[in-house]
Amino acid sequence: MPNNKKNPSALNEKAGISPPEIISTSALQNIKEFRKKQPSATELIKGIISKDITALSRAITLIESTNTAHLSKANEVIQGCLPHANKSIRIGITGVPGVGKSTFIEAFGKHLTSLGYKIAVLAVDPSSTISHGSILGDKTRMEELVKDQNAFIRPSASGETLGGVARKTRETIILCEACGFNIILIETVGVGQSETAVHGMVDFFLLLKIAGAGDELQGIKRGIMEMADAIVINKADGDNIKKATLAKVEFNRALHLFPSKKSGWVPTTATCSAITHDGIENVWQTISDYLELVHTNDYFAEKRKEQNQFWMKETINEQLKTHFYNQPNIIELLETNRKAVQDNEISPFVAAQLLLDRYFKK
Amino acid sequence: MPNNKKNPSALNEKAGISPPEIISTSALQNIKEFRKKQPSATELIKGIISKDITALSRAITLIESTNTAHLSKANEVIQGCLPHANKSIRIGITGVPGVGKSTFIEAFGKHLTSLGYKIAVLAVDPSSTISHGSILGDKTRMEELVKDQNAFIRPSASGETLGGVARKTRETIILCEACGFNIILIETVGVGQSETAVHGMVDFFLLLKIAGAGDELQGIKRGIMEMADAIVINKADGDNIKKATLAKVEFNRALHLFPSKKSGWVPTTATCSAITHDGIENVWQTISDYLELVHTNDYFAEKRKEQNQFWMKETINEQLKTHFYNQPNIIELLETNRKAVQDNEISPFVAAQLLLDRYFKK
Repeated sequence: MPNNKKNPSALNEKAGISPPEIISTSALQNIKEFRKKQPSATELIKGIISKDITALSRAITLIESTNTAHLSKANEVIQGCLPHANKSIRIGITGVPGVGKSTFIEAFGKHLTSLGYKIAVLAVDPSSTISHGSILGDKTRMEELVKDQNAFIRPSASGETLGGVARKTRETIILCEACGFNIILIETVGVGQSETAVHGMVDFFLLLKIAGAGDELQGIKRGIMEMADAIVINKADGDNIKKATLAKVEFNRALHLFPSKKSGWVPTTATCSAITHDGIENVWQTISDYLELVHTNDYFAEKRKEQNQFWMKETINEQLKTHFYNQPNIIELLETNRKAVQDNEISPFVAAQLLLDRYFKK
Repeated sequence: MPNNKKNPSALNEKAGISPPEIISTSALQNIKEFRKKQPSATELIKGIISKDITALSRAITLIESTNTAHLSKANEVIQGCLPHANKSIRIGITGVPGVGKSTFIEAFGKHLTSLGYKIAVLAVDPSSTISHGSILGDKTRMEELVKDQNAFIRPSASGETLGGVARKTRETIILCEACGFNIILIETVGVGQSETAVHGMVDFFLLLKIAGAGDELQGIKRGIMEMADAIVINKADGDNIKKATLAKVEFNRALHLFPSKKSGWVPTTATCSAITHDGIENVWQTISDYLELVHTNDYFAEKRKEQNQFWMKETINEQLKTHFYNQPNIIELLETNRKAVQDNEISPFVAAQLLLDRYFKK
């Protein structure tokens, strides 16, 4: 979040206000020191590359800022970090509320740091703007991981659009990688379009489930199951083990009905318990197997290239739409045409053409 | 297809060439008669509403024309037909090549006409431009239906883009409905994005399958199964009956794993044989049950309204992209940025911004 309220000099700069000419030496010293607290892009890049967490956090705050004045500085930092990025494994983790994502990430993350990995935990949750952090907002759910020197946890960027949040998360990944984090976990909730966005920025996509009363798939958005590289049934502990194993079999059967994946990978199913840690090791083994496959067949690099192209095009397409739908003369005609189309008074294609003609001022 | 080559006067008009001033009376008479053969929009509308198949065919040809001069006339015809349209049931039928779509439509279509319905069979197949009609191109596959007075069969419009083909098909639906056809069957192949387009223009979506050796779902595009309101296993005849019944059970199990549909409808599975006609009647019964449900809960009307809005927006979004990506200065920079993004020299978001800045001439 931008910190302008606490930073009068930045505010003044923005408003074109110069500091008063007559000023005490001590006050001047204060201002200088305050300015010094705002590191330059070069300083931030240097800090990130030398694994300084404070620099990383500050740079992410810059990326998340809605102050347009921060945009070019943020871009400079990203640009400087890019040559040092792209060296991690990016893992997407999704599941509806209640499957135990936070406890799973805590257990899984601790396992990874115990193996010597440095992990960053991010989240994509556009709803956090309204709910003020429905996921990852409460770091206390990851008590152990929070204290881990080799773990970096950052709640979801807030933003009004998924596109905006996705962009910020993707840029944050670059900074984390440049800062030496070699496994990036990206959490998302099993609702809305955020899965698709996360799926488009990770190497491996994990769907977390719990055993239920037959209707365990209700509530998952369409297509999520098809995106999954692995389905892991969590909470397979105590009385739940049998139910979880049954659910695993059922999901496995369903997964085999889906078309084969471009990666050549056959999605797997497993059970685990974030409480007893049973099966946690196995999840990492599965991901390792996947990585071996996709590094051998070059799908790993190919997918990353495709994802880069995808995000460039996606950003363009989103902005073209935003520009169009925000034109005052379009908003007005759109409302009229929307109504006419709904009432079958005009064909949707003719209605679209009228709007486009106005936009391009034909 | 436009008929310009055979219509010199139209060509001359387009090129701004006047007929020679000295002209024989008989030649003049010929020209007049030739022009008369090109009915006006009003004449076409009148013809269509009075159930004249020739007028319908001509109007569809006009819609399918790539000659921009025909566009406003085509729009006029659609506009005139709209008040008489929207009174049919639109059924999408998909399935990979080899499942027997044509023979199924032949059998199903004959059943519908025997019940007194007037059916129109259309197709969405963007590949037909290249393959010159991979589906419905060969009307001989529907020998019986072709001869049926109450059936109208039209192969897929050709077009370079799915968007273009979809638009033409959707407008053709309107004309067919205005012409009194009360069941519209829209065929598509189980590849590419055409299913999504067809799904977005029908009331009921039917996935045709055959029993295979366990891998029967391979080759279907992702998400198709989730779109289906019914999965029908075709070729359930002779030695195949047992296998088909087993496949039906398997699909039924898979369908139950999907999230419930907004329509409130629980997708069904069935077997049928387009050869013996077993199960054909049942398919229509299923669709009738569906219609009863969605008319009762108002989903039928709601979905149609949504589809209209969808096509208006889709057309706008497509054209915005087309305009952007066809700007010469964008094409050039896009190529440079595409390369830089691929090689991780620039963030996809920064690359997108540079392109957008150029487009909007910031």
